[in-house]
Amino acid sequence: MTNALTKEQVLEALSHVNDPELHRSLTDLKMVREIQVRGDKVEVTIALTVPNCPMKAQIEADVRTAINALPGVGRVSVQMTAMTDEERKAVLGEPKEGSAAPYNHVKHVVAVMSGKGGVGKSLVTGLLACGLARKGFQVGVLDADITGPSIPMLFGMHGPPEPGPVGIRPLQSGSGVKVMSMNFLLEAEDRAVIWRGPLIGRAITQLWGDVMWGDLDYLLVDLPPGTSDASLTTMQSLPVEGIIMVTTPQSLASMIVRKAVNMAQALNTPILGVVENMAYFICPDTGKRHLIFGESHAGEVAMAAGAPVIAQLPIHPEVAALCDSGQVEKVKLDEAQGMLDGFLKAMPANK
Amino acid sequence: MTNALTKEQVLEALSHVNDPELHRSLTDLKMVREIQVRGDKVEVTIALTVPNCPMKAQIEADVRTAINALPGVGRVSVQMTAMTDEERKAVLGEPKEGSAAPYNHVKHVVAVMSGKGGVGKSLVTGLLACGLARKGFQVGVLDADITGPSIPMLFGMHGPPEPGPVGIRPLQSGSGVKVMSMNFLLEAEDRAVIWRGPLIGRAITQLWGDVMWGDLDYLLVDLPPGTSDASLTTMQSLPVEGIIMVTTPQSLASMIVRKAVNMAQALNTPILGVVENMAYFICPDTGKRHLIFGESHAGEVAMAAGAPVIAQLPIHPEVAALCDSGQVEKVKLDEAQGMLDGFLKAMPANK
Repeated sequence: MTNALTKEQVLEALSHVNDPELHRSLTDLKMVREIQVRGDKVEVTIALTVPNCPMKAQIEADVRTAINALPGVGRVSVQMTAMTDEERKAVLGEPKEGSAAPYNHVKHVVAVMSGKGGVGKSLVTGLLACGLARKGFQVGVLDADITGPSIPMLFGMHGPPEPGPVGIRPLQSGSGVKVMSMNFLLEAEDRAVIWRGPLIGRAITQLWGDVMWGDLDYLLVDLPPGTSDASLTTMQSLPVEGIIMVTTPQSLASMIVRKAVNMAQALNTPILGVVENMAYFICPDTGKRHLIFGESHAGEVAMAAGAPVIAQLPIHPEVAALCDSGQVEKVKLDEAQGMLDGFLKAMPANK
Repeated sequence: MTNALTKEQVLEALSHVNDPELHRSLTDLKMVREIQVRGDKVEVTIALTVPNCPMKAQIEADVRTAINALPGVGRVSVQMTAMTDEERKAVLGEPKEGSAAPYNHVKHVVAVMSGKGGVGKSLVTGLLACGLARKGFQVGVLDADITGPSIPMLFGMHGPPEPGPVGIRPLQSGSGVKVMSMNFLLEAEDRAVIWRGPLIGRAITQLWGDVMWGDLDYLLVDLPPGTSDASLTTMQSLPVEGIIMVTTPQSLASMIVRKAVNMAQALNTPILGVVENMAYFICPDTGKRHLIFGESHAGEVAMAAGAPVIAQLPIHPEVAALCDSGQVEKVKLDEAQGMLDGFLKAMPANK
């Protein structure tokens, strides 16, 4: 028994285990609370930064693996506890605005915009997010429509979100899409947010900087109608790489969407692609296409935007029903697959 | 020839003729420039406050009538000229914010609201305005959607508006509806208005106080989506008597519309009635009703609003086409007649 296992060896091993969200070691984060070594038996207590940490199982497994790798280890017992607010603040500092930002690594931020309301921005955002997640990408959706949020209902999600060690955690959909919306933070979901512009802008920067988005390939930002505060703040304060512009066949819509195109150009944000929603309705009885809202104007919008039309989506009562019941993830639409392909082709990095 | 006609008599007669917009006498407004009396022949020169005054013919006729009423008058000749900017300022003061307000007399200000975009607020506003005008009411439409205006296209109207003696004049539709929209003031109609909230609010108060609405029975305010600056400023700065709430059958829409209901209640503005738009689509081939956007939720919204459902409007490709081509005044829809009746019944003064 020359090489008896020591506490120091265990501690050293744990100094190589990182918190999967904070990307700092458990020792650095003062999460290692107790180490007992009795012969080949090791007992450790780990304090999570917050109770109900969704990373609990992963941290426990990582701790176990690290200790088991030591020579002469027999049985390993891991106890999990949680820091008090005071302890957490001592390690991570007082909660302040933008505190989650340093821990977030988002490869592409893409805004979904239209200028006009009710054209289907949120549907397009939801379909793209689910499609990207199905392809194995890490995807987030930031609902920037503070006063008229549609995203929570589309995904059937309800707040409040869990607190994270810094900021708050996004909710996660069945297919793994991370979602954050102002609506998760309201006491009642149909409560109005009666705020003037500066507060709207601030809410958006908080949904970006105070949310633990973590590592994402794509963050889709669902913008509200209009070219005022929400759109301005998003384009000026977030690293938006490009825009998907959504329109409908109505001339009225296309005129207002051209305003949004105009705004994107004024702010030097590239438009990646144009989606025409509600392009037609197929009568379930006759199979005939009805141009309910008139002939397409997608070409004109695309011309003004200098970007390709990546999809023309039909009006589909089943899609409306799935969206209304929180099941956007179940929508199967050939046109949505084409939209996803067009989206990926249009992304600057993939061109 | 004892009672020879004098200049003084003519001037006295003209001191009883009022400018039909400013409700002040021509003498008071220094519009009477020259009077010549030769025997029974009278020649007067009247300076309009602005060139191309649309009241020119009426003023000329009123002047003629007043002079002709004098005893011993034979031929009357009326010359029309216009004040210089300096002369106008000397009488009416420097143009300043809210300068048209004292000349406006609006009996009922009603806002058309929804919270959610694209549900058909502008269509409802347009149909109500045309219906009221057909019934002989004096009607105005204030387009409070500064960043995404739909009203100009619905009425097929283009700016710029004419300057008035104070403020600017609304445009007038074929059926006599007075309309003012931010879009009339833009150099190009698809130019984006990239403004933060405070400027949006100020634009709305100017569309109210700097526009010569004149005598109106009804001013309908078409609000943008959301419960932020535009809605807040309208409800706080304009004497809004009540609200028409527009929704669609989507649960999603009704959830967001309930937020608008919530806002109206928080600001103590009564909701007069609920309109459900896009309630169904009648297949032109089979005549069958398709609930494209799902079952109605109008009842729930009405319950939350404490107001009756005054109409359920169908999706009608012909209506969409008329709106897209600036002919909302030509829309014939039985349901719109019912909506108008419901609107009039719901108005507090008519209850």
